[in-house]
Amino acid sequence: MNEFYQQDIISIKDYTKEKLEKIFTFTDKIMNLDPISRREICKGKTLGYLFYEPSTRTRLSFDSAMASVGGSSLGISNIESSSTQKGESLADTVKIMSIYSDALILRHTLDGSSRFAAEISDKPVINAGSGTEEHPTQAIQDLFTIKKEKKKIDGLKIGIVGDLKYGRTVYSLLHGLGNYDVDVRLISPESLKIRTDSVYEIKKKLDFTEATNVEDHIDELDVLYVTRIQKERFPDEEEYLKVKGSYVVGLDLLKQMKSDSIILHPLPRIDEISTDVDNTPNAKYFEQAEYGKHTRAALLGLTLNENGF
Amino acid sequence: MNEFYQQDIISIKDYTKEKLEKIFTFTDKIMNLDPISRREICKGKTLGYLFYEPSTRTRLSFDSAMASVGGSSLGISNIESSSTQKGESLADTVKIMSIYSDALILRHTLDGSSRFAAEISDKPVINAGSGTEEHPTQAIQDLFTIKKEKKKIDGLKIGIVGDLKYGRTVYSLLHGLGNYDVDVRLISPESLKIRTDSVYEIKKKLDFTEATNVEDHIDELDVLYVTRIQKERFPDEEEYLKVKGSYVVGLDLLKQMKSDSIILHPLPRIDEISTDVDNTPNAKYFEQAEYGKHTRAALLGLTLNENGF
Amino acid sequence: MNEFYQQDIISIKDYTKEKLEKIFTFTDKIMNLDPISRREICKGKTLGYLFYEPSTRTRLSFDSAMASVGGSSLGISNIESSSTQKGESLADTVKIMSIYSDALILRHTLDGSSRFAAEISDKPVINAGSGTEEHPTQAIQDLFTIKKEKKKIDGLKIGIVGDLKYGRTVYSLLHGLGNYDVDVRLISPESLKIRTDSVYEIKKKLDFTEATNVEDHIDELDVLYVTRIQKERFPDEEEYLKVKGSYVVGLDLLKQMKSDSIILHPLPRIDEISTDVDNTPNAKYFEQAEYGKHTRAALLGLTLNENGF
Repeated sequence: MNEFYQQDIISIKDYTKEKLEKIFTFTDKIMNLDPISRREICKGKTLGYLFYEPSTRTRLSFDSAMASVGGSSLGISNIESSSTQKGESLADTVKIMSIYSDALILRHTLDGSSRFAAEISDKPVINAGSGTEEHPTQAIQDLFTIKKEKKKIDGLKIGIVGDLKYGRTVYSLLHGLGNYDVDVRLISPESLKIRTDSVYEIKKKLDFTEATNVEDHIDELDVLYVTRIQKERFPDEEEYLKVKGSYVVGLDLLKQMKSDSIILHPLPRIDEISTDVDNTPNAKYFEQAEYGKHTRAALLGLTLNENGF
Repeated sequence: MNEFYQQDIISIKDYTKEKLEKIFTFTDKIMNLDPISRREICKGKTLGYLFYEPSTRTRLSFDSAMASVGGSSLGISNIESSSTQKGESLADTVKIMSIYSDALILRHTLDGSSRFAAEISDKPVINAGSGTEEHPTQAIQDLFTIKKEKKKIDGLKIGIVGDLKYGRTVYSLLHGLGNYDVDVRLISPESLKIRTDSVYEIKKKLDFTEATNVEDHIDELDVLYVTRIQKERFPDEEEYLKVKGSYVVGLDLLKQMKSDSIILHPLPRIDEISTDVDNTPNAKYFEQAEYGKHTRAALLGLTLNENGF
Repeated sequence: MNEFYQQDIISIKDYTKEKLEKIFTFTDKIMNLDPISRREICKGKTLGYLFYEPSTRTRLSFDSAMASVGGSSLGISNIESSSTQKGESLADTVKIMSIYSDALILRHTLDGSSRFAAEISDKPVINAGSGTEEHPTQAIQDLFTIKKEKKKIDGLKIGIVGDLKYGRTVYSLLHGLGNYDVDVRLISPESLKIRTDSVYEIKKKLDFTEATNVEDHIDELDVLYVTRIQKERFPDEEEYLKVKGSYVVGLDLLKQMKSDSIILHPLPRIDEISTDVDNTPNAKYFEQAEYGKHTRAALLGLTLNENGF
């Protein structure tokens, strides 16, 4: 039996390097399969999604991943227009969705929501983003992208730039990187520095330095991971306008970087990366989106098949 | 040819005991089939849904039922954001959806909407809730649950508690129960008693008494069917607050009941049943939701296959 | 290799008579296939839709077309509730959707949006309506309907009545008719006449006259194509009310027409055609909707299969 079978995917903290590498191996396998064989993997299985926070991107990534392995999806993409308006609890909604599907995808504003859902659900629960820190499948996608594009993760110098305070993908990525021997540089305006309470735990596993100037030591980086300044997470607009645009990655910055460095972004982007970077060989954010589909397909395949695929 | 083939499912009043038992037999068959054989039943068929009233629960139940028998679904889950905004009539919308699909699911506020749609549509129409009284597939689901969990329907004492005035599932259930030899007790606040015009017709087929106190004779019941107090159906909020919570089923009440009695609820629930009841062997409302998926799958299989399955 | 393989469908102007006739041949083939063989055509393929302008009808037509040839659909039916709210560009959204699917359907308010998308996308882009003039699959559907119902297009007298200024389907249809030897009569109120800038180009290919009175020469028409007066396209309501209902097609008008003339409408209709016309043998607008499903299925089959089907 494969160790992922019927297991929840709640937190990136549950993933050791060994587990991550296994997922990467199966992702490679998915990518090498012809479409017809690929569709046998989850043939006739149903994925149920519950989005308490809208996220078209993540939902479609799972949807297309499930379609690519032959399954189908159903659920609630915007809980506002659903039965929960009638006052139904998260617990009941999860219980019902676990009857309607073979695995559950949950997106929720609250930390701990996925673990709570997993206790209630008879079917495996996959956290598609919760609270302030967790987005495990995004982290797996990001790590796979680095591995795929740089042929390794250990030994790399990785810069993460932008909103490090409010973006949950950054926290998940840092925890994921904690499994590897990497040198991390966190670059952000003072007001968007990583939260100190979270830093404490991450520091134990991961070596990182902090900076406010994106150009310092930029020439040393192998990977530059850019994040969106999330307007909706700011307490007020003035604060947002102050930092917006201060960390735009353009061709000028790229010129200062190693020729084989790569630029990543979880997307959607607004203007953190100028579009003229898109056509450079360094831009790998669209590949990253494609790998996201395949890593999710691999995770679904492993979760829903006793003996893997 | 099976008698359900290409037939509309409009009103629970059209279902005799014999027909209901046949549906139950096919539901059992569905439940005993392995997933792969099950998916052959409606392979490649398309279910079209038209929801003029939002009902995530019912839509997903049909959606998952159709997926379980190998078909797919498409349609309009919230008619507000659709072409009907441009002023299209129900008749035209139904006509078009019948071109796009093999069977139609209609949810509508108006009594008679499904029968009207059935006259227009070339494809079978399934009423997924209409007007004040009809929700035939819910009634079939409820009856199947009773049968499955109590091994019979005839001879049972059944209490129905809550909002008996506004809840359409209650009327459909009563009409369905009219086919059986049961003893029904309707329990509700004065302001939420069953509508007298509807009582007249039901009385001919069904023996029932009315009460306002949920604890009276509770020890005699085999089945307690709890319904939600539907806030949206009250003319004003004050009236709602007056009765809300007056009929909460908790462990205290359960202790007064027969040890093998069962608690049902069409869901979603708010607080009519306290969550500590969920883990008792009497709580069968989540099983009821699961049976709902299977009864609907059976109905779809019978409607769309000339020789049954 | 079939000439439509992996080709974008952007503008009806790109379709010669020869190409159109090929599509018609394949549509006939689709209609003659049994459902099981039909579902092999795009088995396991995924259609991604992006609707920047809501259009339930067109989306469901594509959705059901794709289902009929064995594929599935995913996407964003109402971009308002999606990531683009977070400020994502059309280019990025298209890029991502092209990763998630085998072909893209785009509906957008802007002229040129589909051609722009096609340049960005690695997968074929199908224009599902853009700007003021283009709706190529609607035109193909309309032409196929005429051909199917009248056994020919050349030599016909075709009246197009209603809102000729704001309705994009009319412009696409006129360009499509430009490939044939037809006699076109445009009938509209003065304020809704066809735009003179567009007339210039169409005039080169197509012989048409203009009129304001729907009854003039009505007895000569083989086809009467009726369009909706689109309220949402009027600058103010007063202007709308002035012309609304002035061109209603009823039994009176039908009596003045040739007995074998046909009435078409792209739907949805409000009251441009009175419902008592529906049951006459001349009414072909519901057949037109059905042909729309099949022409789209043929286009998808040709676009996604190297050697046709």
